[in-house]
Amino acid sequence: MLLLIPGPVRTHPETRAAMAADIAPWDNDFRPVYASVRERVRAVAGGVEGEHATLPLQGCGHFILEAALRTFVPAGAKVLVPTNGAYGTRAARLVREAGRRVVALPGPDTRPVTSAEVASALEHDAEIGHVLMVHHETGSGIVNDPAAIGAAVRAAGRRLIMDSVSAFGALPFSMAEHPECDAVVFTSGKCLEGMPGIGFAVARVDRVLECEGNAGSWSFDLHDVYTHALRSGWGSFRFTPPAQALRAFSVALDLYGREGGQKARLARYTENARVLYDGVLGLGLRPYLERRHQGPVIVTVHQPQHPAFALQRFVDELKARGVLISNFSCTEAPSFRVGCIGAVTPAEMRGAVAAMGEALEAMGVRERVAA
Amino acid sequence: MLLLIPGPVRTHPETRAAMAADIAPWDNDFRPVYASVRERVRAVAGGVEGEHATLPLQGCGHFILEAALRTFVPAGAKVLVPTNGAYGTRAARLVREAGRRVVALPGPDTRPVTSAEVASALEHDAEIGHVLMVHHETGSGIVNDPAAIGAAVRAAGRRLIMDSVSAFGALPFSMAEHPECDAVVFTSGKCLEGMPGIGFAVARVDRVLECEGNAGSWSFDLHDVYTHALRSGWGSFRFTPPAQALRAFSVALDLYGREGGQKARLARYTENARVLYDGVLGLGLRPYLERRHQGPVIVTVHQPQHPAFALQRFVDELKARGVLISNFSCTEAPSFRVGCIGAVTPAEMRGAVAAMGEALEAMGVRERVAA
Ligand SMILES: Cc1ncc(COP(=O)(O)O)c(C=O)c1O
Ligand SMILES: Cc1ncc(COP(=O)(O)O)c(C=O)c1O
Repeated sequence: MLLLIPGPVRTHPETRAAMAADIAPWDNDFRPVYASVRERVRAVAGGVEGEHATLPLQGCGHFILEAALRTFVPAGAKVLVPTNGAYGTRAARLVREAGRRVVALPGPDTRPVTSAEVASALEHDAEIGHVLMVHHETGSGIVNDPAAIGAAVRAAGRRLIMDSVSAFGALPFSMAEHPECDAVVFTSGKCLEGMPGIGFAVARVDRVLECEGNAGSWSFDLHDVYTHALRSGWGSFRFTPPAQALRAFSVALDLYGREGGQKARLARYTENARVLYDGVLGLGLRPYLERRHQGPVIVTVHQPQHPAFALQRFVDELKARGVLISNFSCTEAPSFRVGCIGAVTPAEMRGAVAAMGEALEAMGVRERVAA
Repeated sequence: MLLLIPGPVRTHPETRAAMAADIAPWDNDFRPVYASVRERVRAVAGGVEGEHATLPLQGCGHFILEAALRTFVPAGAKVLVPTNGAYGTRAARLVREAGRRVVALPGPDTRPVTSAEVASALEHDAEIGHVLMVHHETGSGIVNDPAAIGAAVRAAGRRLIMDSVSAFGALPFSMAEHPECDAVVFTSGKCLEGMPGIGFAVARVDRVLECEGNAGSWSFDLHDVYTHALRSGWGSFRFTPPAQALRAFSVALDLYGREGGQKARLARYTENARVLYDGVLGLGLRPYLERRHQGPVIVTVHQPQHPAFALQRFVDELKARGVLISNFSCTEAPSFRVGCIGAVTPAEMRGAVAAMGEALEAMGVRERVAA
């Protein structure tokens, strides 16, 4: 089965095989695995030893994102959140329910937020201390540009938190080049092609130390994650970790290195997305985004306006042909979403496009669309 | 390797093999797995369909415990926490950092809290709305009695939250018999012998519905977990779940049923603990707890007061003999801890005792202790 969802992704057999083991997380044999994950992840984030630390947290992407914002943003403080897509909107909700004040910067879900929009919002509200930006918007497939937004945040003397859950490891980002960034957060199960179960922040140590007492939650306090790790020589977790997911992630990072790291991964995903984008055009379908805004992680496509089209039926027809896509959509207009990430090749993407054509034909949709 | 830690536990090969798969969590093929996990878990908790719901949460035991207390206890309200051990103390910290007021009920870590102590604390402070009790105290191995404590809470007209992380599935507990209990929480990786990565609350639906807006955290809001699940026909998670851990947990529940459920599991663990308790006595060591307070989950043992004893060395010597125990202790006096739970038989426990004897001899400790 070709899993084409934007996480959890299809993994290499080696990666998932690493899940099938009993592990004592604090054991001396497991410590080097954990240490090398931390160091390699910091390197992918462009972090510098001593200045940046990898802080792991059990659970999913929302959890590590909530932890970062609770840690770096004091209760009651204001956070600007560009909401040009489903995950931006989700980030805003996380902020609000955590008792921080949201200033939403709405935008259409068809183009990136601009640095001018961010600069203007910051200029008009001096109380905004942080910007929480979604790097790749998984709702639609657009990429918000950290270089441009980061520069606007830096120029305004504010701080940045990066939700890079669906971009990290594929789209370039470097903490060293973004001193305004308190933390970049991501998970094991997206572009780094591990299994789900654990999130990470790569954070500035100076800022972590300044932020003691902000979190209002022991579970989500990254200051405590950091100081506990230091006290234990980075050998133990505060709470039981999903050690299997960490072990599999270590294998996934080996494979990432062997493939050629961020550049190679981005190149493969970009080609996957191109094959898909051109392919659905060839099927007479309409991609949700203009090509210039199309990122390499997920291609969303307008649902055909044909009475015979129904999303679950389309998903079932595709599944019968060995391709699994999401049975829900996250865009303003109805769409279907096809992930381009994971252990998937452009050749397989061509196969997926062919399967889509067959599925539409089986549903009696294609002729009308192509007409 | 015989993993003798009180979670993550040694699992059956079948259980861990189920981890090695790519899964789309919302897929129609995965829904029945998830549904049957929810139903079986509710049954183990003595829950009634319609009255009680199984609410899963990504992450570890601390997370589901924090979620339960945020959901059922309004911010600023008072919670009584018996702190007769390391996990009671941890629960109190979770409450405090979540902005609820803790009334600690300290006790020695060598005996259960009594219903008289709880009743008296509740009588003296009418502001206390909830009691958060640890069922099995994993710090030492004692069992706090939910029947007795629950009755005291019920009589006082207060509410109960049960941390049954290290007891659930082995020690008996029934939500139906405890109307004062808002929720019992536990994880996949303890007595039910799954893999770590996901926590569960079995909660009263009426109370969940009353508690909208309490949590102060989207991630940890069990009201939202419940209403989202309803809206999606219980088919999708709010956030990416560790689907592999859920799949393995489903296999673990099959094995649990085949073994004979709670009674059979309790019987095996009880025998494991007896073999261990008698065994360490036979080695001239001193168990941390009196026999009448010794539960079936973990046996803690005083570290020998011998200059040649060092915990890490002891752990290493045991490991060289195929037995892995924790390299830290959680008791007031220095101890070592040996888990009795997981896919482990009494015969293997006898082997572990023999390995301990050899390890102590190799360290030059045993003769002095036995003298
Ligand atoms: C950009 C972005 N942020 C946050 C998340 C949340 O991650 P999770 O589903 O693991 O909670 C996702 C998940 O797809 C995402 O794509
Ligand atoms: C009684 C009890 N409560 C809570 C926890 C916390 O669980 P976790 O380590 O998964 O966060 C544990 C873990 O051993 C426990 O034994």
